Parts: sequence; structure tokens; C-alpha cells
Amino acid sequence: MSLRQPPPGQVSYVAAADGAFGTRIIALATQLAEWSETPDGLTCTYLTPTHRAVAAQLRDWMEAAGMTATIDGVGNVVGRYAAADPAAKALIVGSHYDTVLNGGNYDGRLGILSGLVAIEQLNRSGLRLPFHVDVVGFAEEEGVRFSAHYIGSSAMVGRFDQRVLMRRDANGQSVADAIHKAGFDPDNLASLARRPDEMLGYLEVHIEQGPVLLQQDLPVGIVTSIAGTIRYSVTITGVAGHAGTVPMPLRRDAAAAAAEIVLYVEKRCSTAPTLVGTVGRLAVPNGAINVIPGRCELSLDIRAGDNATRDAAVADVLAEIERIARRRNVATEIKEIQRGPAVPCSPRVQAQFAAAIERAGIRPFHLPSGAGHDAVMFDGLTDVGMLFVRCGNGGVSHSPLETITAADADLAARVLLDTIVNFEHVP
Amino acid sequence: MSLRQPPPGQVSYVAAADGAFGTRIIALATQLAEWSETPDGLTCTYLTPTHRAVAAQLRDWMEAAGMTATIDGVGNVVGRYAAADPAAKALIVGSHYDTVLNGGNYDGRLGILSGLVAIEQLNRSGLRLPFHVDVVGFAEEEGVRFSAHYIGSSAMVGRFDQRVLMRRDANGQSVADAIHKAGFDPDNLASLARRPDEMLGYLEVHIEQGPVLLQQDLPVGIVTSIAGTIRYSVTITGVAGHAGTVPMPLRRDAAAAAAEIVLYVEKRCSTAPTLVGTVGRLAVPNGAINVIPGRCELSLDIRAGDNATRDAAVADVLAEIERIARRRNVATEIKEIQRGPAVPCSPRVQAQFAAAIERAGIRPFHLPSGAGHDAVMFDGLTDVGMLFVRCGNGGVSHSPLETITAADADLAARVLLDTIVNFEHVP
Repeated sequence: MSLRQPPPGQVSYVAAADGAFGTRIIALATQLAEWSETPDGLTCTYLTPTHRAVAAQLRDWMEAAGMTATIDGVGNVVGRYAAADPAAKALIVGSHYDTVLNGGNYDGRLGILSGLVAIEQLNRSGLRLPFHVDVVGFAEEEGVRFSAHYIGSSAMVGRFDQRVLMRRDANGQSVADAIHKAGFDPDNLASLARRPDEMLGYLEVHIEQGPVLLQQDLPVGIVTSIAGTIRYSVTITGVAGHAGTVPMPLRRDAAAAAAEIVLYVEKRCSTAPTLVGTVGRLAVPNGAINVIPGRCELSLDIRAGDNATRDAAVADVLAEIERIARRRNVATEIKEIQRGPAVPCSPRVQAQFAAAIERAGIRPFHLPSGAGHDAVMFDGLTDVGMLFVRCGNGGVSHSPLETITAADADLAARVLLDTIVNFEHVP
Repeated sequence: MSLRQPPPGQVSYVAAADGAFGTRIIALATQLAEWSETPDGLTCTYLTPTHRAVAAQLRDWMEAAGMTATIDGVGNVVGRYAAADPAAKALIVGSHYDTVLNGGNYDGRLGILSGLVAIEQLNRSGLRLPFHVDVVGFAEEEGVRFSAHYIGSSAMVGRFDQRVLMRRDANGQSVADAIHKAGFDPDNLASLARRPDEMLGYLEVHIEQGPVLLQQDLPVGIVTSIAGTIRYSVTITGVAGHAGTVPMPLRRDAAAAAAEIVLYVEKRCSTAPTLVGTVGRLAVPNGAINVIPGRCELSLDIRAGDNATRDAAVADVLAEIERIARRRNVATEIKEIQRGPAVPCSPRVQAQFAAAIERAGIRPFHLPSGAGHDAVMFDGLTDVGMLFVRCGNGGVSHSPLETITAADADLAARVLLDTIVNFEHVP
């Protein structure tokens, strides 16, 4: 431990030894990854034995760090580093501990562990803050087991959708059953909801899951907004036919229409910096090498940092699908399956992150988040801020190849700690 | 039955009552379709109990029509309407009696039944010809059960590929097993081979399986050539990524590359009349709505009435795939899985069909066959001729919607009978 002089006007704390945060984060994430539902790789889905074991471990670490820690009635691990005044507001630092199938060690968990090591350091320093700091491991964000996202964070803010209780996993077990079996009361989730006036703000550190910081050669970035996603499933119906016997001008090929759509989405969504458009599913059902596709199915995912940019692109894409269908004489069925608004991050919190990053000697860089995060659930309830950490291997995530460096994790935890201790809690 | 005066110089026979051929063909095809491996629709695959029942029925009908009929050692039903001279050559009239999964009543069977009703009429007329007429129902053309095509016709001409004996169906049974189980000797298929000097020619009536005759408002057409098919499977490997977090310029989207290929194939193959190109299979394996496709698989089927036209198109398509892959920085793996030469139909037989069609008061019309047929197996061994019959419902085949009219079937059988009796057997 070295004593480091904080910048003038900043709250003082005992800094960790250079690199200690990062080394510890990597070690803890590696230890957590030993619990997995799959023999190779890392899979941890809502309320499985693996998931419960990870929760218990997080709780133990939080307690060892001087927090009072509990697992709440939906499976969130909530550790409180309490202020002297029990009536103080809480600054929430969180992310999720569930994973995708065969995921990476850092998606979600980096945000919990950054909070944990920051509190460990505060605790070692004996520094108490004028507000509670709640480090939260959300039980469910990825939606893998029940195709329902944000179960943990939505319950904490009173936005849990009761219909989700009826969703079933692949074995037919419902969310309500799973919660009950875990010893919680599925009828009592509403009681977990925090009031906005109890919250000071919400901070989330997360691996970027993309290549932007890598390209910028920066360890961290400040999220400007979390993209709102609109998703459609599109079915194109043309006329199947023999690949040898229907002359080209007489064809009504569903896959050719789909190909035009794919390329238009790519072109249109390349016209604004934060805009992205993806056709992730594309298939001719029961396609045969010698049959002209009579049907083609595709998915559409369009996001942008703000709703206006996204909605303009969606409108253009839908209009173009219409034009393509008319010209090719094929039918289309377009089903909207998701529409989430873009969530802007608090300018005040962005400025606080920027100041802390500058104090760490790094250029503050802003970028949008194309992926959704637990932070979305806190929109409109409290000030939301997100810090992205550089993602290695070209920016790959949702994969065992997902990686970060200890140095970047270290820097992120330092910036988080600095932001926490200097958090301006008076609006 | 009405006695009809044949045109001067033509062989005389007693014509069927107007429409009688067509009515009977439709009735027989409907009766055959009652045997099916699937409860709805028509499925008859190689050497199943259904398939054996159909063969027995065809043999019985052939015998009733005055032919000596047998089921040969590979399952072909061979009926001979014998000439007086046992050493005479045989004019073969054939097509296949197996079907695709859930196929139509006429694909293949129309050619056998046209021959059958023609012989029934000759037999009623008491007219013997100076050559044998062999009506053949080939046991296997579609390749459904064992992914091997032309099993029946290839065995008859000595072109059976012995490696096919090892192919297995979905239950693991090999072709050799199936042949053995049916009471035939899989080691003895070579003995079925006919010598070219035994054959006078090969005629095949077939449903067009396309919309050209429908568009031309003609009941029958004369096939000029049977397209040679080149088929490839193409796998494109880009880089998977999160649909929200990878900016458009940094993507290496395999599906977008595939879309460009699909549209190029369509464009390039629209540049010559007999040329067709199809991407029938197209899929992002395990595609997810929120994942940029890292892999896309597609099939390529390119055909033309002549090899030069086809090969030029194939070369351009392969070069364009190369260019697309380079520009998008994706990898491609291209595997050739079939290459068959185009088979020209005999000009002499085409002229004979044309003369018979003109005598029926119809405009002779020539068109290529984009589909492969048993006729392909006779290429180079004897004169090959094919007559296409108008396909209803927009030209759909390989479907329960496949249909023909009784009037068109009637006309086709008349033209076939006229062609048979007037077949110029001296080269």
C-alpha cells in the first residue's frame, strides 16, 4: 500500500498499490468462473445451483470487505458499505453475475468486482462516506434460461413484469417455481422495490463488448447513452420452384428479396455514427439445393444512441422492404418483437467519470453503448452512469474468448473508486 | 373408338376416342398415388413397401396391355411390346415411378403411363411394329432415400456407380442391403446393362415442372437439351460480434457477403435465355437476433442448355465471390458437389416429335430442360428425345399442387403414340 496524495479539493483515501485492483479482479473473476453449468466454458443461468453458489461467494466477499451483505428475494446479492447516518441515500454500484451460454468471465461480473475491490480499499482506509454505497450483483440480465431479461434489476426498482413469473425454461419450470424453489416468495417481489428518493445514483462498470476502445487505444470510455433496440422478425413468401425449370424472369425468389434487405440494412445503418443494424438470423427453411426459395426468414435489430436516429433508420428500412416486396412480387410479414427507448446517461455523472479519468492521466473518451445493461432499469429513477472497459481479442464478448487486461481492470476500478468518493450527492 | 385416317405416308393405327388417353392417364396416376409412405400427400421412395406395391401394379397393367413385363434386378418395371422378330431393336419409352417427399402425381409417372396407354391402344389395334417397344418404369430417379440419383436408369445402361451400393438411408440401411432385402442381387447389377446396339432410341414424356408452356399457351413442347448442372456449397466465415456494439465499418458480416453473392448469381444468370442460377440453401447456422453473423452457408446451382453458357456464368460467379470476400475481408470455402454435362436431344427425334405435334394441329415449340431426367443416362448410347407436358398451377412441381389437365395428357399420349409408330428406325 502506498499513500498517494489526492488532487486538491478531492476526498482523500488510501490508494491501492499500483496494479493491485486489477490483479485481484482477474483473480476473483477466474475463481467465480470455476462454477459453471457446462463442463467447458462458463455458463451461469438464473437460480441454478451454479448460480446460487456464485451468489453465496459474492455475499461472502462483500461481508469480508466490511459490507452488510444479503441475497434478496429475487437472487440479487446486495452489499452495503453503510454511511454513519442510516437514513442516508445509497449510491448503487452494480452489474449482473449471470452469464450467457459459454460466456466470458467479465461480462457483468467486472462491474460487481470493480465495486467490491473499491469498497475493500475504502474499508482498509477506514473511510466512511456521507452516503451508503451498495454494491449489487444482479441475479439475471442475460435472459438465457427464461428468455426474460433484467429480472434482478427490474425487481430492485419496482419494474418487474409480473407476466415473467409464468415464463418457463426448457424443462417446463416457471420463473415462479424457480424463485419458490430457491426459498424466495414469487408473490413478494414488489416489496424489493427501492424508492427513487433512497437512491443517489447508479454506476455500472462493464466490459465494452465491442472494438471501439481497442481501436482508440484507451483502457476505459464514458458511455453517453444506452441504445434503444427495435427488433423485427421478417418472413418473406415468394414462390418455390424447380431450380432448373423456372426461367429467371419468372421467379419470385424469397431469398433474393431477403438478400436485398440485408444489404439495404447494412447501407442505411452505416449513415450515422451511433447507428447499427443487424440481420442476425437468416434462413431459407428446409432449403434445398435444387429448389428456388419460396420462403425466407430473417431478423432485424436496429439501434442508435438516440431514438430519433434509430426511428428514422427503421422507417427507411421498413419502406425499403415494402418496395423490394412490391417490385419482386413477394409477400412480407413483419412482426415487431421488441422496442426499447434509448437511455441517455446522466451528463453530471459523465462529467464526474471524465474528471476521474483525467486525474488518472487518461484522455476521457465518450461512446454509446449498443448493448443493453442493467443500468437501463434505473432510467428516470436516478442519475445513471456507465464506464466501459476495453475488450480484448478484437472486442469479442459472449464467448470464452472475451478478455480484458489486469491493467485495464485496475484503471477502471481506480476511476470507479475516485468517482464514488467524490460523488456529488447534492443535485 | 373411332377409326381415324392417318396422314398419307404414316403408319396406320386405331386411334383412341378423343380424350380417352387423358382420362385414363389421370385415373391411373390417381390410383398409383394411393400408395404413399406419408399419410397425406404422395411419397414413394426406392424399395420401400409402397414402392414395391407401385411396381407390382405397373407390371400388372403392362401385362394386361399385351406386354411381357418383369421387374428387373434393380427394381425397374420393364414391359415389352414385342416385334415379330425377337432380334429386333427396342425403342425404349420410360420415366421413373419413385417420387420426392410429398410430391406430385405426374412427375415421372406421366412418362410411364403415356407409354402404357399408347401400347394399350396398339394392342387393341392389333398393330405390331418392326421393333420392340419397351415401356420402362425406372425404380429410382429422385435420389430421396439414398441421396443417389438415377439408380434405375443407370443400371439399365451399364452406368451404375458401384460406390452407390454403400450409400445409407436415414436408418442406416445401405443401397446394397435394400436391394438384397427386395430379393435382388446387388452384386449382379452389371448384368442388367443393355448394349447400345440393342436400342433404337429413348423417348421420355415428362411434366415440364416449370411455367414456360403455360406462358406459351401450349400443351406440349419438344426438349432441345437437358441442362448440365454445376453445384457448389459455399461457406463464408466472417467475424461474429454483438449486434449492438460493433460499429458498421468494423464488421465482417458473413450474411452480408452471402447477400451480395445471392444477388450477383441472380443478375449474372439472367443474361442468357437457357441459363438459370439458384441459391436454394441459405442459412446463418445458429443465428441469433443480436449477433452479427460470423458464418453463412449457401448452395449454388447453375445450369444452361449448353456447357459453354453455363461454364462462363460459373466462372464469373466464382470470380465475383472471390472479389466480395476480398473486399469484405471474409473467408470462403467453395466445394464443387456436382458437375454434369448438358445433354443435347437428338435432332432427328426432335424432328419426329415436331412432325407428330404438327399432325395433331399444334404449333411445335422447343425449350430446354433445366431439370435432369432419366434420359440423361442414355446420352451417347442411343438417340434421346423428350416431350414436355404443360404443368398447371403456375408450373409448380415437387409439390402436391403439381397438376396437368386430362386434355394435355391426352395430346401428349397421342403425340407419343404417333411418334412411336412412325419412328424411323434406320439411321
